[in-house]
Amino acid sequence: MTQSELGSQLKLFSLSSNQELAEKIASVVGVPLGKCSVKQFSDGELQINIEESVRGDEVYIVQGTSYPVNDNLLELLIMIDALKRASAKTINIVMPYFGYARQDRTAKPREPITAKLVADLIEKAGATRLLTLDLHTVQLQGFFDIPVDNLFTMPLFEEHYLAKDLMGENIVVVSPKNSGVGRARVLAKYLDASLAIVDQCSNDESERESYVIGNVENKTCIVVDDIINTGHTLAVAADVLKAAGAKDIYACASHGLFNGDAASILAKAPFKQISVTDSIKLPETVDLPNLEIITCSRLMGDAVNRIYKNIAMSPLFGYHNKS
Amino acid sequence: MTQSELGSQLKLFSLSSNQELAEKIASVVGVPLGKCSVKQFSDGELQINIEESVRGDEVYIVQGTSYPVNDNLLELLIMIDALKRASAKTINIVMPYFGYARQDRTAKPREPITAKLVADLIEKAGATRLLTLDLHTVQLQGFFDIPVDNLFTMPLFEEHYLAKDLMGENIVVVSPKNSGVGRARVLAKYLDASLAIVDQCSNDESERESYVIGNVENKTCIVVDDIINTGHTLAVAADVLKAAGAKDIYACASHGLFNGDAASILAKAPFKQISVTDSIKLPETVDLPNLEIITCSRLMGDAVNRIYKNIAMSPLFGYHNKS
Amino acid sequence: MTQSELGSQLKLFSLSSNQELAEKIASVVGVPLGKCSVKQFSDGELQINIEESVRGDEVYIVQGTSYPVNDNLLELLIMIDALKRASAKTINIVMPYFGYARQDRTAKPREPITAKLVADLIEKAGATRLLTLDLHTVQLQGFFDIPVDNLFTMPLFEEHYLAKDLMGENIVVVSPKNSGVGRARVLAKYLDASLAIVDQCSNDESERESYVIGNVENKTCIVVDDIINTGHTLAVAADVLKAAGAKDIYACASHGLFNGDAASILAKAPFKQISVTDSIKLPETVDLPNLEIITCSRLMGDAVNRIYKNIAMSPLFGYHNKS
Amino acid sequence: MTQSELGSQLKLFSLSSNQELAEKIASVVGVPLGKCSVKQFSDGELQINIEESVRGDEVYIVQGTSYPVNDNLLELLIMIDALKRASAKTINIVMPYFGYARQDRTAKPREPITAKLVADLIEKAGATRLLTLDLHTVQLQGFFDIPVDNLFTMPLFEEHYLAKDLMGENIVVVSPKNSGVGRARVLAKYLDASLAIVDQCSNDESERESYVIGNVENKTCIVVDDIINTGHTLAVAADVLKAAGAKDIYACASHGLFNGDAASILAKAPFKQISVTDSIKLPETVDLPNLEIITCSRLMGDAVNRIYKNIAMSPLFGYHNKS
Amino acid sequence: MTQSELGSQLKLFSLSSNQELAEKIASVVGVPLGKCSVKQFSDGELQINIEESVRGDEVYIVQGTSYPVNDNLLELLIMIDALKRASAKTINIVMPYFGYARQDRTAKPREPITAKLVADLIEKAGATRLLTLDLHTVQLQGFFDIPVDNLFTMPLFEEHYLAKDLMGENIVVVSPKNSGVGRARVLAKYLDASLAIVDQCSNDESERESYVIGNVENKTCIVVDDIINTGHTLAVAADVLKAAGAKDIYACASHGLFNGDAASILAKAPFKQISVTDSIKLPETVDLPNLEIITCSRLMGDAVNRIYKNIAMSPLFGYHNKS
Amino acid sequence: MTQSELGSQLKLFSLSSNQELAEKIASVVGVPLGKCSVKQFSDGELQINIEESVRGDEVYIVQGTSYPVNDNLLELLIMIDALKRASAKTINIVMPYFGYARQDRTAKPREPITAKLVADLIEKAGATRLLTLDLHTVQLQGFFDIPVDNLFTMPLFEEHYLAKDLMGENIVVVSPKNSGVGRARVLAKYLDASLAIVDQCSNDESERESYVIGNVENKTCIVVDDIINTGHTLAVAADVLKAAGAKDIYACASHGLFNGDAASILAKAPFKQISVTDSIKLPETVDLPNLEIITCSRLMGDAVNRIYKNIAMSPLFGYHNKS
Repeated sequence: MTQSELGSQLKLFSLSSNQELAEKIASVVGVPLGKCSVKQFSDGELQINIEESVRGDEVYIVQGTSYPVNDNLLELLIMIDALKRASAKTINIVMPYFGYARQDRTAKPREPITAKLVADLIEKAGATRLLTLDLHTVQLQGFFDIPVDNLFTMPLFEEHYLAKDLMGENIVVVSPKNSGVGRARVLAKYLDASLAIVDQCSNDESERESYVIGNVENKTCIVVDDIINTGHTLAVAADVLKAAGAKDIYACASHGLFNGDAASILAKAPFKQISVTDSIKLPETVDLPNLEIITCSRLMGDAVNRIYKNIAMSPLFGYHNKS
Repeated sequence: MTQSELGSQLKLFSLSSNQELAEKIASVVGVPLGKCSVKQFSDGELQINIEESVRGDEVYIVQGTSYPVNDNLLELLIMIDALKRASAKTINIVMPYFGYARQDRTAKPREPITAKLVADLIEKAGATRLLTLDLHTVQLQGFFDIPVDNLFTMPLFEEHYLAKDLMGENIVVVSPKNSGVGRARVLAKYLDASLAIVDQCSNDESERESYVIGNVENKTCIVVDDIINTGHTLAVAADVLKAAGAKDIYACASHGLFNGDAASILAKAPFKQISVTDSIKLPETVDLPNLEIITCSRLMGDAVNRIYKNIAMSPLFGYHNKS
Repeated sequence: MTQSELGSQLKLFSLSSNQELAEKIASVVGVPLGKCSVKQFSDGELQINIEESVRGDEVYIVQGTSYPVNDNLLELLIMIDALKRASAKTINIVMPYFGYARQDRTAKPREPITAKLVADLIEKAGATRLLTLDLHTVQLQGFFDIPVDNLFTMPLFEEHYLAKDLMGENIVVVSPKNSGVGRARVLAKYLDASLAIVDQCSNDESERESYVIGNVENKTCIVVDDIINTGHTLAVAADVLKAAGAKDIYACASHGLFNGDAASILAKAPFKQISVTDSIKLPETVDLPNLEIITCSRLMGDAVNRIYKNIAMSPLFGYHNKS
Repeated sequence: MTQSELGSQLKLFSLSSNQELAEKIASVVGVPLGKCSVKQFSDGELQINIEESVRGDEVYIVQGTSYPVNDNLLELLIMIDALKRASAKTINIVMPYFGYARQDRTAKPREPITAKLVADLIEKAGATRLLTLDLHTVQLQGFFDIPVDNLFTMPLFEEHYLAKDLMGENIVVVSPKNSGVGRARVLAKYLDASLAIVDQCSNDESERESYVIGNVENKTCIVVDDIINTGHTLAVAADVLKAAGAKDIYACASHGLFNGDAASILAKAPFKQISVTDSIKLPETVDLPNLEIITCSRLMGDAVNRIYKNIAMSPLFGYHNKS
Repeated sequence: MTQSELGSQLKLFSLSSNQELAEKIASVVGVPLGKCSVKQFSDGELQINIEESVRGDEVYIVQGTSYPVNDNLLELLIMIDALKRASAKTINIVMPYFGYARQDRTAKPREPITAKLVADLIEKAGATRLLTLDLHTVQLQGFFDIPVDNLFTMPLFEEHYLAKDLMGENIVVVSPKNSGVGRARVLAKYLDASLAIVDQCSNDESERESYVIGNVENKTCIVVDDIINTGHTLAVAADVLKAAGAKDIYACASHGLFNGDAASILAKAPFKQISVTDSIKLPETVDLPNLEIITCSRLMGDAVNRIYKNIAMSPLFGYHNKS
Repeated sequence: MTQSELGSQLKLFSLSSNQELAEKIASVVGVPLGKCSVKQFSDGELQINIEESVRGDEVYIVQGTSYPVNDNLLELLIMIDALKRASAKTINIVMPYFGYARQDRTAKPREPITAKLVADLIEKAGATRLLTLDLHTVQLQGFFDIPVDNLFTMPLFEEHYLAKDLMGENIVVVSPKNSGVGRARVLAKYLDASLAIVDQCSNDESERESYVIGNVENKTCIVVDDIINTGHTLAVAADVLKAAGAKDIYACASHGLFNGDAASILAKAPFKQISVTDSIKLPETVDLPNLEIITCSRLMGDAVNRIYKNIAMSPLFGYHNKS
């Protein structure tokens, strides 16, 4: 019996949500993407075929749960079930974007905690590990019993802005809403910048206007969020910052959903530049001239290799693409 | 403390898949539909609001998982999670149509058993009971650990055909494929009819032609299936029966998906009449003159009442709408 | 530390149900049977002693659950518990015959689903995988969360009948009852034969007589079932086929229980030959001159090797003993 | 909706192991035994029919797991599964004798802990509570996560011997082996008697002879054990006591298995009287003139009523049949 | 059988952490505290005796997990186990303070998520519901699968400050650190006040100084936190605010741990008044003249009643002690 | 990819309870202790830092749960959680002393079974195996579903007494209470000695005096218990034995808790020598001149090696330190 017959191979599959990123990750990992196909019937049911043996292998599935979130989630769950029954040794989910993450608490009576439900479904289906990127709230790790590696994007943005010489006392890192200040705090520290907050009454019919807490006059502002969804939050923040005397305004976010009119809203907002990672496949309709995409594939691919080889992940928490 | 404060109320909610049927069931049960709303964001994420207290109540949710199956399934799972966290006493799923039921085994290597996955997800979310209608295979009951009541539609069709005087030796009940003969057998017995089978090589590139096993010459045929999906299986069966000398041909099925071109395929086939229940909301594009809809609402509503009142379900297994 | 100290060995144990088959499988796998003993006390309690270390090993247990099914099942469960506590790395059940498989649904109100119960018990005890042979219904795979490999016997019978030149248009493959047509369909395709069904009103006090659906006049019939239990179903089918003009009649079934008077009932029936696999140890009282036993040991042993070496199982789905 | 439609009824069913005791318990509880039947097929498979509705009811099943233990255990598990799927509200096991209780630890390497396995199987099947009698070791309660009420028989024997005036300084309560001294200690305290132990090298090929620890000369001895199995342990103890000068020798045990030659072995031993409860149905072959049966039905029936009515069980721990 | 024999009673027990609060809650609920005792042996092991029947009852346990957190947590878990085995119908934890809540994420590699562990332990022991107060992060609700009601204290503080006429444009609500801004935002809205943040580099050896983001000059500041632990965070915030020109400075927090030198640190800080609820028993050594205790007993007691009576909790989310 | 990158390493960590023993075990195993630190905050909360990668490793944690039992237990559970989330391959608990072991049954109504609770907590946290030493009752193994290896100390004491020539007919091994006779029986057999029991009415307000069952006159007695807690049980036994004419009296116990005044109580008792293992770190206040400590480190270290290398444990059941 040869060693190759007994050993576990690393196999990396991509589902539908972000084929391009999956290919980049595969290239970093140094393996070809596994062969599988997904077919959707006219009644919406999905059928998955895994076209190579996975018996005894360490399998990684690249699948985010951006739009269409329910189809992408079911696709993932069905794939996990198929791998479990096909005797994969481990089933590792590589999820660049974790959908439903914002439904993480009962804000009003009788609300679900959908993020926890999603975590439960993934575990119940049979996943043995999750590798993800900049979760909306870090507490989501605790929604899982399986190991979760949550990679951070801030070092990527640090590298990005340092390359533009945006650092030091003329820079203010701005949180565009009163939650999520932690993320801004981290980038501010990396860039040796100060901090400000735009207090927006989101999800509220209140007429109170948004305003800046902190001083941004004549400063270059970098607005940091985790998700660009409709673009509304960022656009309001930019207007408020401009009104408060900000000079140039940059924006960055880990995940670019760009739903609905996001592109046109952001095109009108006074941003010099907007940066997101490629964690989510850019919708084809999005055409933003000042948008820059920073790849997270090296970070994620390196993480896959470290997991497979049992090497510590800690160096990745300050990971730069050029490192 | 008054009794009403302590007692459990029956609450019936409808989600998006088949509002019309839910209203009919509510009317049979004798309660108004509960207040809840479902909102879908531009990124596809669903948000559910339950707008009345369910604390300590026995809650029933009417939701099938027909097209769009993944959205309908997630809607159901999120609703279950919300009810569980809102302290409903029991969470009973009223599922007139159970999607993904045909993926119930590993037919080829490395296939998922998606029907089992769906069962697991529903249980994991927190459902305490399932009431459903004519499952594709009865073994699906065993995919659940919670109690499953699987109602049969054949008595409804028996009543339907007896009213047309279709019974006795001139009638042949036909299974349009070599699986599912059991369902045809039951209706044949009810109608005192004989049995035939159309042997179709479905899912197969084979050139072998379909043919009838059994004698249908000069007989009135009733083709029985559980699901009308693309209409192809029924249409082929009708052609084969006609070629074998059948007189009038009827068709019935518990669930009318009518996907893709089903309506036009069936319109061209030599059916005198086609009957389905209202377990699935008829797509608006379907315009079939010889289609007759038989409601399953009395059957399902009666079952809800029996569950709530702890009365035996056994009488329902020979249930007629006019009984 | 030598490699042999750390590596996992394949260990194959046989319990009481079918020692002879276990030895054949062991010979195919190429390992000796492990040492263990089972003792039954006068109060019926079983005591199992595993007489060699299994710490860290990949253990396979050969045990079917034919008569006496409850003793055989408990023996299996106790062995699994002992292996789990003795730190076996994996516990793989090799179950040539899965008892209680026919109790797979709630046919009447308040019936158990014993096949699911058995699946739950096996998983709860600690089994990590099941290898079985021609399950009564394929949906039983979905009763398990652990991987289940369900091997098919039809290729063995195909090979068997081809060797007798039984193929082509003079052959009709017959399902002896209106369920289980799928199994007959597969063999018919392999043998390029046509299909017929004997419609028997089993489990029914009805006086309606059994009859053939399809044409068998002057044809050689091969009646296919999964289990020969009391022999009654096959005997009736043979009579009905003879009356309908069949020439020679053969019968085959994956599993030969031969309970009660089965041998004498079948001896009187007009079969030219009856074939079963050795999945169940033939009761000593059975003396059927026209019975032929086809071994499933090569098929099952090959599967054990593939599982241990992590090689794809797919080639086994068209497996011939002489291949 | 009337109250009776909504309320939960107490239903008491008997399985096969001890019908006579079940009838006595039913009479104490004040309800008729529920209608159900158990059928064993020729291949040993059991089929259970529950012939009345249990939907929403609090169900109690009387079933011990004495000989044939595996059949009795499976019968119980299948009944639990049927009740769970038939929507019983609670499933309470009334188990006068808990088989496999002596396999409660790993005495030698690679031994199973079958008593724990049995506990797991009962819970997995769906039981919600266990009521049992004088468990072999009290730690078995901890093998369950569901509530376990373990009733004691010593007060019944106290009452029994007090009625014979066997108390005070002329009485020695004797443990016939070096484990299980606790049980003897309790009875000794009740009867104000002293304590002795017969040290037997059970399960041992050693030639060392058994002997008495403690003084029994000219005393009346009451040998106490929990189970009379082969009778060997008691017979040896009686001989040793006699040799040590004991006057009259009595014996009592909670559970009378009387396996193998137990009756003839005990008939020859110098016992004045032997007492057991009716927890196990006396094998028909047992004909012991000096055997007296003490019913545990009042104790167990009272416990059932207390559970159903939510009344504290504590008074039962000093329960006398005549109280 | 009388109704009282069958009905479930509400029983409220207090463990060791905060007997005084438990008594107040009992008084609001309108029941006496149940009888139970906790004994700690010299080796630290706890023994719990429940001195009245709980069979079939709805039991509420008042226990926070403040200092000594491990003893208090084990006490709670052991009590839950005892209640489960004693057949309580429901086991509801009333936890005014949830210890270990700040260990809710993996901030550095290889950190535990102790808050999730604690949630798992509580569920595993058998709790069926948690009622708690102002969790450190709201996402902790999602760590549980059982229903969690998380009551808010901000309305209590709103009422408190309104009674002092502290509202409107002269008031600034201040978050003393860059996380937890949400809590400050809520109180600011209630008091129609503006918002500021003290940016502190906690858990960091950095020499960077803390500073105010926002304008507090000549304003009355109310510093809001969830927990007063060592008092350090609040003291620094007060100094920074004073330096930035703040007029009067108030502080409030839901939970007053007052560990170590907290009292003396806070006594030296420029606070006009500090308010906490009585969720944690004030350490006897704490003697702070400007400390005011606001009881949460009416809020929690009302919640217990609503849970028991199945009344909606939603009115409690704007609960005032004087309402 | 080198082998060392993929292989699993054995890592051994010590928590706080018994650092000295952990170092001895590490030395036997042949690996250095892993780097980790435990910090306790002023509110009692524990924070654990694992300071080296454990990804993919086989980790062993040495931690007993002696005083302070609750802190030690939580420390263990938190460490397990951290290791699980840090992707350790296996998490093996090396627990020389299992606290709460004596709460292993419901002796009085409404008592918890804390030993089972502790087992459940350890499993729920994520441990995959337990290695322990002389459990209070062997049935505790069955409280776990993970493999438990329970090592015995009697061979160590056998070796100890044989070295003193204490064997044969002049020696009586004495159980100091009427439970736990089994342990004394084993040592008696090893030493070819006879057996006696001191019948003590522990946990009882009774005035009945303790007395010896069996003959000890002019014999050398070895009193054997599993735990020395307050020393009371042993001291009473020694007095009773002395009064019954015993010559020299020795005592041994697996675990020396020495709580409260144990040292002074035992110092006054007529023991020639007392022996315990180093399973529990001796409290610093204990100063007993006739106390001898026998290390269990060779036994436990050897067991760790056997588990890691998948070698049978059976030779350890007769393990001598000098073997």
